[in-house]
Amino acid sequence: MLKMVFFDIDDTLFDTSGFAKLARKAALNMMIDAGLPLNSVEAYNLLKEIISQKGSNYDKHFNLLTKTVFGEEKPLLIALGMISYHNVKFALLRPFPKTNSTLINLKSKGYRMGVISNGITIKQWEKLIRLGIYHFFDEVITSDEVGFEKPHPRIFEEALNRMDCVPNKAVMVGNKFSEDMMGAVNAGMSAILVNSKLTPKEKEYIEKEKLDVKVIANISDLNDIL
Amino acid sequence: MLKMVFFDIDDTLFDTSGFAKLARKAALNMMIDAGLPLNSVEAYNLLKEIISQKGSNYDKHFNLLTKTVFGEEKPLLIALGMISYHNVKFALLRPFPKTNSTLINLKSKGYRMGVISNGITIKQWEKLIRLGIYHFFDEVITSDEVGFEKPHPRIFEEALNRMDCVPNKAVMVGNKFSEDMMGAVNAGMSAILVNSKLTPKEKEYIEKEKLDVKVIANISDLNDIL
Repeated sequence: MLKMVFFDIDDTLFDTSGFAKLARKAALNMMIDAGLPLNSVEAYNLLKEIISQKGSNYDKHFNLLTKTVFGEEKPLLIALGMISYHNVKFALLRPFPKTNSTLINLKSKGYRMGVISNGITIKQWEKLIRLGIYHFFDEVITSDEVGFEKPHPRIFEEALNRMDCVPNKAVMVGNKFSEDMMGAVNAGMSAILVNSKLTPKEKEYIEKEKLDVKVIANISDLNDIL
Repeated sequence: MLKMVFFDIDDTLFDTSGFAKLARKAALNMMIDAGLPLNSVEAYNLLKEIISQKGSNYDKHFNLLTKTVFGEEKPLLIALGMISYHNVKFALLRPFPKTNSTLINLKSKGYRMGVISNGITIKQWEKLIRLGIYHFFDEVITSDEVGFEKPHPRIFEEALNRMDCVPNKAVMVGNKFSEDMMGAVNAGMSAILVNSKLTPKEKEYIEKEKLDVKVIANISDLNDIL
C-alpha cells in the first residue's frame, strides 16, 4: 500500500499561470498610469515577448521593459511594476479549490507528504507558506538542492531517501507529463496527472509500456483513488 | 531664495529603525513557533549580533541565524522569517506624523523636491511608493547610481545637476550630521537636521565655521522656516 504522496507545486497545488497573468496586467496598468507610453494591450504584448525571451524566472522583466521603451531603465516605473505585481499576486494567492480538504483527508488516512520541485528551496517553501499549506509537508526537495531537475531520476531518488521510503510505496502528483509522470515512473514510483490531459501519443505510450500513470481532473479526486 | 529641497529617506521621512525592530521580533516569533529552539530574547540578541556583524543591508540574516543554531540552513524557517518580516514591515510602513501635509505645503509654496540617498535607486523609489509619497519627488539620486556615497560632494553635485539648480538655492534635510549636514554644506548647500541632536562638539564646529546648518525637532517645522 502507498505511504508517501509527493506533489509538484506550480499549476498542481495552485494556479500559478492564472495569478501571474492578473498580476502582470495590474503592474502594467500602474506603470502606464505613471508614464509608460503604451496602451495596456501593447504593454502586455511587449511583456509577454520579454518573458518568452528571458524565461519566467528572470527577475528583471520590468527593467528590460522600460529599457526597451525608453532606451534606459526607469527606476520609479520598475519599482511600481514590481510592487504592484507582488501585491496582486500575494493578495490572490490561494490553492486550487478543495486542495486543503484533500490534504487534510490524506493526512488523516496516514499518508506522509512531500514536495518535489524544480526551483529554489526557500522560494518553494515561501509559496507553501503563502498558500497556507506548509504544515502538511515534511520535506521540500528541489532541483537547486539536488543539482538535477525533474525528470532526472536523481531528484526523485533523493526525495525517497530523505523520506526513508521505497519507490513502490510512493506516488508523484503533478501537471507535467514528462517532468512529473515520466520522472516518477523512471524512478520506480507511480504517478498521477492532474490539471492536464494526455496527448494520444502519451496515452498510447503508457498503455504499451504498462506504466503506472493515472489521470484525474481535480486534486480532490485523490480522495477516491488514494 | 531657496528653490529646491532635498531629503534623506531612512529615519528622516519614516521611522526605519523602529519598524525594522518590530518586524524582526515578529519574524523571530514565527520561526520559534515553527521550531527554532530559542526564546524570543535569545533569538533577538542573536539576530542583533548577526546584523551588527554583517550590516543591515545584508539579505541573508535569517539564513545565517538558522545556520548558527542548527549547523545548517533551514529553508522553511528562513522563508517564514522573511515573509513575516516583510509583511509586518509593509503593514506598518508610514511616514513620520505630518510628513504628507508638510510635503503638500512645500509643493504649494513652489519648492521642487528630490531625494539624495545612500542605497539602490529602485529600492529607494520602492520605499517612497510604499510610503505613499513618491508623487512629490522629481528625482531620486542614489550612491548606487553616482558611485559615491554621502557625504561625498559628488552625489550632491550630481543631484543639483539633475535638478538644474545652483547650490545656494538648495537645502538638504536629513538626520545624520556627517552624511547629510556636512555633505551638503561642503557642496555649497544649506542643511537642516531633523530627528537628531547636535553633539556639543558639532555645535561648536558649526558656530566656529559659521556653517548654514539649522536644527528642527520635527519635519513639520519645515513649514515655519521654508
